[in-house]
Amino acid sequence: MTAAGAGNFFEDFHAGQVLHHAPPRTLTPGDAALYTALYGARFAPQASAEFARGLGFPDAPIDDLLVFHTVFGKTVSDISLNAVANLGYADCRFLRPVFAGDTLSATTEVLGTRENANRETGIVYVRSTGANQRGEKVLTYARWVMVRKRSKEAAVPPAHVPDLPMAVSPEALRIAAMKPLSAAQRPQSGGKRFFDDYKPGERIDHADGATVEEAEHMMATRLTHNTARVHFNAHAERQGRFGKRIVYGGHVISVARALSYNGFENAYFVAAINAGRHVSPCFAGDTIYAWSEILEKAERPGDDRWGFIRVRTLAARDHPCADFPDKLADGAFDPSILLDLDYWVVVPRR
Amino acid sequence: MTAAGAGNFFEDFHAGQVLHHAPPRTLTPGDAALYTALYGARFAPQASAEFARGLGFPDAPIDDLLVFHTVFGKTVSDISLNAVANLGYADCRFLRPVFAGDTLSATTEVLGTRENANRETGIVYVRSTGANQRGEKVLTYARWVMVRKRSKEAAVPPAHVPDLPMAVSPEALRIAAMKPLSAAQRPQSGGKRFFDDYKPGERIDHADGATVEEAEHMMATRLTHNTARVHFNAHAERQGRFGKRIVYGGHVISVARALSYNGFENAYFVAAINAGRHVSPCFAGDTIYAWSEILEKAERPGDDRWGFIRVRTLAARDHPCADFPDKLADGAFDPSILLDLDYWVVVPRR
Amino acid sequence: MTAAGAGNFFEDFHAGQVLHHAPPRTLTPGDAALYTALYGARFAPQASAEFARGLGFPDAPIDDLLVFHTVFGKTVSDISLNAVANLGYADCRFLRPVFAGDTLSATTEVLGTRENANRETGIVYVRSTGANQRGEKVLTYARWVMVRKRSKEAAVPPAHVPDLPMAVSPEALRIAAMKPLSAAQRPQSGGKRFFDDYKPGERIDHADGATVEEAEHMMATRLTHNTARVHFNAHAERQGRFGKRIVYGGHVISVARALSYNGFENAYFVAAINAGRHVSPCFAGDTIYAWSEILEKAERPGDDRWGFIRVRTLAARDHPCADFPDKLADGAFDPSILLDLDYWVVVPRR
Repeated sequence: MTAAGAGNFFEDFHAGQVLHHAPPRTLTPGDAALYTALYGARFAPQASAEFARGLGFPDAPIDDLLVFHTVFGKTVSDISLNAVANLGYADCRFLRPVFAGDTLSATTEVLGTRENANRETGIVYVRSTGANQRGEKVLTYARWVMVRKRSKEAAVPPAHVPDLPMAVSPEALRIAAMKPLSAAQRPQSGGKRFFDDYKPGERIDHADGATVEEAEHMMATRLTHNTARVHFNAHAERQGRFGKRIVYGGHVISVARALSYNGFENAYFVAAINAGRHVSPCFAGDTIYAWSEILEKAERPGDDRWGFIRVRTLAARDHPCADFPDKLADGAFDPSILLDLDYWVVVPRR
Repeated sequence: MTAAGAGNFFEDFHAGQVLHHAPPRTLTPGDAALYTALYGARFAPQASAEFARGLGFPDAPIDDLLVFHTVFGKTVSDISLNAVANLGYADCRFLRPVFAGDTLSATTEVLGTRENANRETGIVYVRSTGANQRGEKVLTYARWVMVRKRSKEAAVPPAHVPDLPMAVSPEALRIAAMKPLSAAQRPQSGGKRFFDDYKPGERIDHADGATVEEAEHMMATRLTHNTARVHFNAHAERQGRFGKRIVYGGHVISVARALSYNGFENAYFVAAINAGRHVSPCFAGDTIYAWSEILEKAERPGDDRWGFIRVRTLAARDHPCADFPDKLADGAFDPSILLDLDYWVVVPRR
Repeated sequence: MTAAGAGNFFEDFHAGQVLHHAPPRTLTPGDAALYTALYGARFAPQASAEFARGLGFPDAPIDDLLVFHTVFGKTVSDISLNAVANLGYADCRFLRPVFAGDTLSATTEVLGTRENANRETGIVYVRSTGANQRGEKVLTYARWVMVRKRSKEAAVPPAHVPDLPMAVSPEALRIAAMKPLSAAQRPQSGGKRFFDDYKPGERIDHADGATVEEAEHMMATRLTHNTARVHFNAHAERQGRFGKRIVYGGHVISVARALSYNGFENAYFVAAINAGRHVSPCFAGDTIYAWSEILEKAERPGDDRWGFIRVRTLAARDHPCADFPDKLADGAFDPSILLDLDYWVVVPRR
């Protein structure tokens, strides 16, 4: 008898350890079409191969977040199958565009571990990296997760908590596009506002709401080989914390990013994720709304064609965002908030 | 603060105005596969690249209705986001086949406007046209929608209602295929009846029923960048006219067309849509049945290989169509009817 | 008036009859992506084109079971539209890999028929074969189905029951891969156990559970042109045997095979299906678990790189399989069992 796919527990991790996740995954036009069907993302370079070619790409690049989910999904069976909670992300950088036909592999280095006082769980800090078939890195990010111990008594290494940046500095960001946006392309992306038109402090209500279905979040999550059980098993989750399946947090990120097209149409690429917090779990039947706040802008020395905008997007459940729901006076979030995501996008200049 | 994606209101339209819809959309084998998964269409040229090559195509053409939905979807955020009702279609012609890899753009010319007596809404008449990456037109159609005014008091142009044909004349129809159906291909499409075997007045019960799911109609509708809010937002629609999401009318058209394969297997291409009426709204949980009536046939001068058949397909909710539900004695439709579609198809001759 | 798509009844079949199913179906990267989204299969050669090329394939092969469902789906409208029950499979052999771009056609030979004593139904024995666009056979299998008679009084041929093997002999199995697994590839597939590590009699709990949704099984089933009405028509099935739609049995097979990756990661290809029994019908809302028993192993003379493992996988509804639910003392199955599948897989040697 064999217990299969049980995953690693806290005592299986130690700083310096490297895990190679299996199997590699080739992304295709089929994956890109499913991403469109599931989220309705409308950013021009991913929607139109012609538009992408105008920016110097050989083809429409795969949506950055699908790349993220693919690398993340690969790591789940080794890193977070026995996770109690996914606590945070840091220093997530998109390093190179990915195209249909590329095969992504993922590896994870354990940055540190810290057992909790109850000795039943601990926090594992990791850096995961995705690479294409040429071994070129396409994505890297740190995350920390609370993982169960197999045995309370198991001895573990001394606590080691890595230093992680609060935000990615603009100098570390990359522009995937090789060419500037041409005058002919300018009206094609649906937005009239460019880098120069957004002001730090500005808030944008993305207006639309998207209701999540079980079939949709499960298809999205399986597409990237993510095997976290809480997303797929209604029978077991009936006895779980919430009595039902929990939607993969990355699904909420992708819904919110797709909604953000309304008002942020020229935010073509995600360059980095500074921090992300899944404030509340999302369930099928929830309607997701979103709004964004412009945090800061970064020009690039010697580049008058592209700039970076740092933005914070909040997703809320069953709460239209014209009133910009956020943290309350006591510092806790409005109870409708599902997601608070801080990230950099690449936006053409005026 | 910014209100994003609010769309145009009645007073924003005027005859002669041209709108370029964003962004362009590249269709891929992934879109075609999703179309199959969502509707189960089985017409041979779209199902088999080999069959299509036998007709002189370089590859399997994209389903005509997916082309229609893609162009239509592009127009929604500019034309019908504030629509009360989609009133009708006319003079919809499929001009050129579309293949995986083609990028479609859409533009709309406003043909006319007419304010309603209540001054709260008005009818906008438009012609939308889809073109591929070479600027070749692939589809054109007129439609008219009732659109809300932003402000009851707003001044509007004098009423102008365009002339639109009741039906597309056979001379205006095109045959996408370059070669005739070979003898070897003849049995491969699943139908024993050809152009010469159908008689005007004949009625065909398509027999099967297809139950619509929320996840399916939302995936189908998002796939074509259609952002009409009533399809996606259960939270808002709970307070809406019907208390629930409304299925995109084009979803019903595609379900009915896929069902029509039973009995109309050799109706390979849609050449034109003469008129279409969404008689009742469709909701998830509805089971769609369909039947068709042969209206007329048009031979092509000098062509003994292909002909056009004009057909009317009705879709009904929870009503098997062996009794051909239609208009009642008082001229109103049987309450089960969802769709009444009048269109031309291309059928090989015997 | 025409009754369309009524399918064949028992008296329409006779031994020796050959049916050519329409239309052919080209599989694409879109179909493969949908298969991943619907089942989450993670076997390395299908997941990674790079991994597949390392085994000598030109590209990632299409999942064997998607090939099976495609050929099976083609046969439904001619063979089993009026079936009461799908009774069994035998001698199912995968003969050649299928790649995106290949077009599959299916033909069926009737092997025999036997009317039931009640004269209302009979059993039809058939062999169906799928071929690619070059006419090369890719799959062949026998199955027998109980089919309704159109008319109880109709005369039928004398009973003829064909001989069918209880299992495919190892000599008849083929290895699709052209090259052995390289040392570099060995860790990429996610499994540490190879041919030599499995022992007949061993049982493996695949641990995860997957809940089935209506939208998912319908999309999966439509994708392969399977038109069996019980899967799609909630309105009619409300009056049917179970009061609801029945999930296509092949959907359960694919869910179970995808789950089997946990513990059987290196079972790259299905070489043959010896026998399959759908013990109970599956419905949306069911959570499918699975376990496998290693039945036997077959080395290949002169081949120290690949071997065949015969395995029996059982799928159970709402029943985690750590206790390996199976037949009970009285020979009946545990009531949770949905599927009992006996098949050969191709596994690299250590």
